[in-house]
Amino acid sequence: MGKRIEFFFDFSSPYGYLAAQEIEALGERQGAEVVWRPFLLGASFKATGIPPLVEVPWKSDYARHDLTRAARRIGVPYVWPEPFPFMSVAAARAYYWLDESDSAAAKELALALYAKAFGEAGDVAHAGEVPEIAVGLGHDRNAVGAALQDPEIKARLREITDQALERKIFGSPFFFVDDQAFWGHDRLPHLEQWLETGGS
Amino acid sequence: MGKRIEFFFDFSSPYGYLAAQEIEALGERQGAEVVWRPFLLGASFKATGIPPLVEVPWKSDYARHDLTRAARRIGVPYVWPEPFPFMSVAAARAYYWLDESDSAAAKELALALYAKAFGEAGDVAHAGEVPEIAVGLGHDRNAVGAALQDPEIKARLREITDQALERKIFGSPFFFVDDQAFWGHDRLPHLEQWLETGGS
Repeated sequence: MGKRIEFFFDFSSPYGYLAAQEIEALGERQGAEVVWRPFLLGASFKATGIPPLVEVPWKSDYARHDLTRAARRIGVPYVWPEPFPFMSVAAARAYYWLDESDSAAAKELALALYAKAFGEAGDVAHAGEVPEIAVGLGHDRNAVGAALQDPEIKARLREITDQALERKIFGSPFFFVDDQAFWGHDRLPHLEQWLETGGS
Repeated sequence: MGKRIEFFFDFSSPYGYLAAQEIEALGERQGAEVVWRPFLLGASFKATGIPPLVEVPWKSDYARHDLTRAARRIGVPYVWPEPFPFMSVAAARAYYWLDESDSAAAKELALALYAKAFGEAGDVAHAGEVPEIAVGLGHDRNAVGAALQDPEIKARLREITDQALERKIFGSPFFFVDDQAFWGHDRLPHLEQWLETGGS
């Protein structure tokens, strides 16, 4: 079996946005397949009692500076979306709709959604905005619209969010290589070293 | 004025321990003086409502693995102390006692205290253990013992802890270069880049 990275993230997670810019290149360098798994981080916050970043005094202000620096470090545009956090349900459903038949197209959509949210502070929270972005990538507007209300797609996102809870995912982005958990954009070098050395 | 890094940490912070292993070499590479500022992180937890790591479900288990990996990555021994967290008041007071006259000796003591706590899972929480370690470095047992009860030393630690709150320090380790804040052992590369480029 080939090497495999599982990449769990919430579309409203700014550090998830940064990780999404780098994870495929990392996978390519290490000959590892990357499986993208958007989920709803709110469920983890509820399970652990961890508050959303913006609700933590001092840490929230710090994060704004840190994100600007971290994005500049890797050379990607970054703006803080308003409002933040935003509802990421529609974005995640659209992802799983495409992922069923074409994971490359799903990743392309994910990057476009992330670029809109954190590259331009655009709205991807509302059901109307997500099809707009999908249409820009050549997808059919009615098909996307229908997918966002499809009971099977809804169930798929719930299933992945349940898996995230079972696997004790408490933040975003969150990665697994085999059973090894890595939390945070800043752990990509650790993850890469793990793949390189086989964990030794 | 020369370059300067302020290094705030709590002696019971495992990521503070890791940062302490690397910060002086970083300062030397960048021609920056490093000012060590042990403080009592509990005051920040109280002010922000952030719970101590061990009290957060899932995150606490994750941190054990992460710390083991992060320590191996930089080639330093690491064990999880029991009990954890521990009282770091005596260690911090001993630091300020030496720092008054000889900051190099204070840093040497800090590294010895950290090595005891996180390199050997030894006890540095109790007033009796701290003088033992100081004596091992050639300091006078009675002088250390007296310092731990010295009202001026006690006031110094309170003053630094108050400064930490004023500067919105919510975690350990926490660094400043000028007015730029960096939180976490994993932000040392960001801090170094800031020094290298002058923040551009």
